Amino acid sequence: MQADADWLAEVKWTEDGLVPAIVQDCASGRVLMVAWMDRAALAETAASGCAVFWSRSRRRLWRKGEQSGHVQRVRELRLDCDGDTILLQVEQEGGIACHTGRESCFFRRLRDGRWETTDPVLRDPSDIYGDTGR
Amino acid sequence: MQADADWLAEVKWTEDGLVPAIVQDCASGRVLMVAWMDRAALAETAASGCAVFWSRSRRRLWRKGEQSGHVQRVRELRLDCDGDTILLQVEQEGGIACHTGRESCFFRRLRDGRWETTDPVLRDPSDIYGDTGR
Repeated sequence: MQADADWLAEVKWTEDGLVPAIVQDCASGRVLMVAWMDRAALAETAASGCAVFWSRSRRRLWRKGEQSGHVQRVRELRLDCDGDTILLQVEQEGGIACHTGRESCFFRRLRDGRWETTDPVLRDPSDIYGDTGR
Repeated sequence: MQADADWLAEVKWTEDGLVPAIVQDCASGRVLMVAWMDRAALAETAASGCAVFWSRSRRRLWRKGEQSGHVQRVRELRLDCDGDTILLQVEQEGGIACHTGRESCFFRRLRDGRWETTDPVLRDPSDIYGDTGR
């Protein structure tokens, strides 16, 4: 095993070889999204400095921003005490992380027994992606 | 179905009936921990205003702080676009969320190819829990 892979071995991967990654905006502190990484995605994220995930629906590496341009420049990578969750501090290109065109995927707040949408759509998803999905 | 359960039905639970919950300090913005909730845990969290999780290891509800006193007072509950992750904004009693006695479970940062511990232990775990675990 190469020395540079030791830190990857400290991550507790799921049976599917994945780990959840929380993405936080390093300027605002806002939690932007949660996605999954496999070993290759985490290694490439660390090496390239831009967030790369594993898309479970498309079953391939997903270089965040590859379609939207909403690249996430990684300022810091953290691991939790159990070794089973990654935390990324990022600069969010375009100020939009969510495929709905909002800053954050956490745009609904519980209020009076219902999930209330609190965040505006900053850019129409069809402008971001055309009709090809996220 | 009661009206107050509709919001619970909007959560996409795993096959095991769980949902991951990210806990963020509402003052500092620091991501403190990630844990799991079942339906009962999320319902009680919303009703009581204090964070309740499902302990997968002990297979029972885990009222955060029940042993340590490090209760999390919930200021806000959010749901993400996919409906499969909860975000809690909390006031962290005692300023310690991690069972290691640190503020946050994310106390390790990747640097030069290794996970470097950056956060001090604020209180000895044996002071917090005795010898009975977290």
